[in-house]
Amino acid sequence: MSEGPIVATMIGDPCGIGPEIVVKALVEDHASARHLLVGDARAVAGAVALARAPFEVRAIEHFGQAKFEPGCLDVIDPGTLQTRDITVGRVSAACGRAVAQWWDLTTALAREGSVDAIVKAPVNSEAIRLAGAPAQAGVQPGRTYLFLITGPLRVVHLTDHIPLRQVFGQLRKDRILELIRMIDATLRRWGIASPRIGVAGINPHAHGEEEEREIAPAVEEARALGVGAVGPVPPDSLFRQCAEGLYDCVLAHYHDQGHIAVKTWRFEGNCAVMLGEPFLRVSVAHGTAFDIAGRGQADHRSMASALRTAAALAGGRGFPAA
Amino acid sequence: MSEGPIVATMIGDPCGIGPEIVVKALVEDHASARHLLVGDARAVAGAVALARAPFEVRAIEHFGQAKFEPGCLDVIDPGTLQTRDITVGRVSAACGRAVAQWWDLTTALAREGSVDAIVKAPVNSEAIRLAGAPAQAGVQPGRTYLFLITGPLRVVHLTDHIPLRQVFGQLRKDRILELIRMIDATLRRWGIASPRIGVAGINPHAHGEEEEREIAPAVEEARALGVGAVGPVPPDSLFRQCAEGLYDCVLAHYHDQGHIAVKTWRFEGNCAVMLGEPFLRVSVAHGTAFDIAGRGQADHRSMASALRTAAALAGGRGFPAA
Repeated sequence: MSEGPIVATMIGDPCGIGPEIVVKALVEDHASARHLLVGDARAVAGAVALARAPFEVRAIEHFGQAKFEPGCLDVIDPGTLQTRDITVGRVSAACGRAVAQWWDLTTALAREGSVDAIVKAPVNSEAIRLAGAPAQAGVQPGRTYLFLITGPLRVVHLTDHIPLRQVFGQLRKDRILELIRMIDATLRRWGIASPRIGVAGINPHAHGEEEEREIAPAVEEARALGVGAVGPVPPDSLFRQCAEGLYDCVLAHYHDQGHIAVKTWRFEGNCAVMLGEPFLRVSVAHGTAFDIAGRGQADHRSMASALRTAAALAGGRGFPAA
Repeated sequence: MSEGPIVATMIGDPCGIGPEIVVKALVEDHASARHLLVGDARAVAGAVALARAPFEVRAIEHFGQAKFEPGCLDVIDPGTLQTRDITVGRVSAACGRAVAQWWDLTTALAREGSVDAIVKAPVNSEAIRLAGAPAQAGVQPGRTYLFLITGPLRVVHLTDHIPLRQVFGQLRKDRILELIRMIDATLRRWGIASPRIGVAGINPHAHGEEEEREIAPAVEEARALGVGAVGPVPPDSLFRQCAEGLYDCVLAHYHDQGHIAVKTWRFEGNCAVMLGEPFLRVSVAHGTAFDIAGRGQADHRSMASALRTAAALAGGRGFPAA
């Protein structure tokens, strides 16, 4: 039996590239954690055959049966789908329903403490809508924060999908301080002894009233509490500085401030963690890519990054090398 | 005598890295244009010696004496400085005064049509301040626009150094349309037959009232006029798409929207053009770097890019290969 933290990965919509990229990513790195899959075992077996991966697929019914043996993929398969339900490349309500069920099962494993991290492969929002299942949870304003990771460039977003105009109303010293402290505590839990957090300004060159009134005081107070926060840093320099290793993570104030940096710098290999959730959940920027599903062409770099990141952070080993 | 457009380069503060990076850049590419320098001829000769560059330096008094011969650097030197005025690595009022005079002379050459493009090497704002010379002109709101170029990623900024809050008041359909048309006309003059202009949104995923009311109507009207504008495009995807070749240029709405993308993607080799000026002026992102001046260590990539860009655009050959 392998060692290390237990990472449960939901295989995503079986009609898309999910199972394929999960299997390809596990070929690269199966030993850094005890991996477990949740989904349709036949879909996983199909992906193993497609990728000519050196794995035996072992369908199990519940967590207690997982053996985590080398060369073997344990798949918790609640038997939700029939073979006829899966047509690769087609949106299907049955798969939307299955994905919702599998994800509930996966998050329950995390909530009850059976697994140390969970990873979500791409799901299809149209299939989920057709199934009448609730939309997958996103950021909960003021409670959870999107943490994008692409190699050394890592960005937490104070606000998410709100109009840019409304960001100013959210830019309050107390909220910023709270988020800095949450980032600091989380990075320590993940194995970074003295987190260095670069806090962005919001105006050109970080000169403006928001910096003076809200951001700088939050950073000062965080520093007085012993947190290694720096800022407000000119937004146009900060992300590059982080990518070059000057910071462990950036605090960005609005969606595009962080997303422009991450997606322009290096889209491939990026994954996301939701900061503030009670367990470690990693998701990927992949879509389901129905157009290339089943062909063995899908780029699995983001999924590989997600699995490596989940294993490293859950194991308290800090961020994995890019 | 060489062929091609005439590019006049002001060598920058002679106490900084300007002369050195200009000479190094000209070693790489002296033949793409007829190059002419403006500044202190001894400082240029010093930089030639430092870089062991295969150039003879020829001091001239006015433009009509330039010969543009291969292996020879014509330097218009009005005799502003004495040898004792130049101490490499030191801020000096005399040099600040000289730089201001040289730049006036250089812009006059462009204004009178003697040269096709002008390039500015790094100047030291403290030296210029000590000299009591007027600060160098930046963006003139509503008249000129900063055009950042780093290889295939090229970004024009609708607004410049204003607080982010104030951007919304500038985001008007008519102004955006005018800028799109100015970009289109300029790119055509530079040799791009059918410019493809990606217009950014301003809200996450380009969904919001500014997109609906101002940006989309401007793009539609531009398209009706035959301009190849596309948008509003989600800001977090657009810059990468441009870097990958989908657009010739991006229209960004605020300073950091464009600067985060450019500086995070690839700071090295970036240069800037001021769109809307009556002549082509290219400047670089280098500082004067007094701390490493005179040591031959300065990275000349931005200057090389500026000279290549000036030559290519003034020659109507489009953007140079990165």
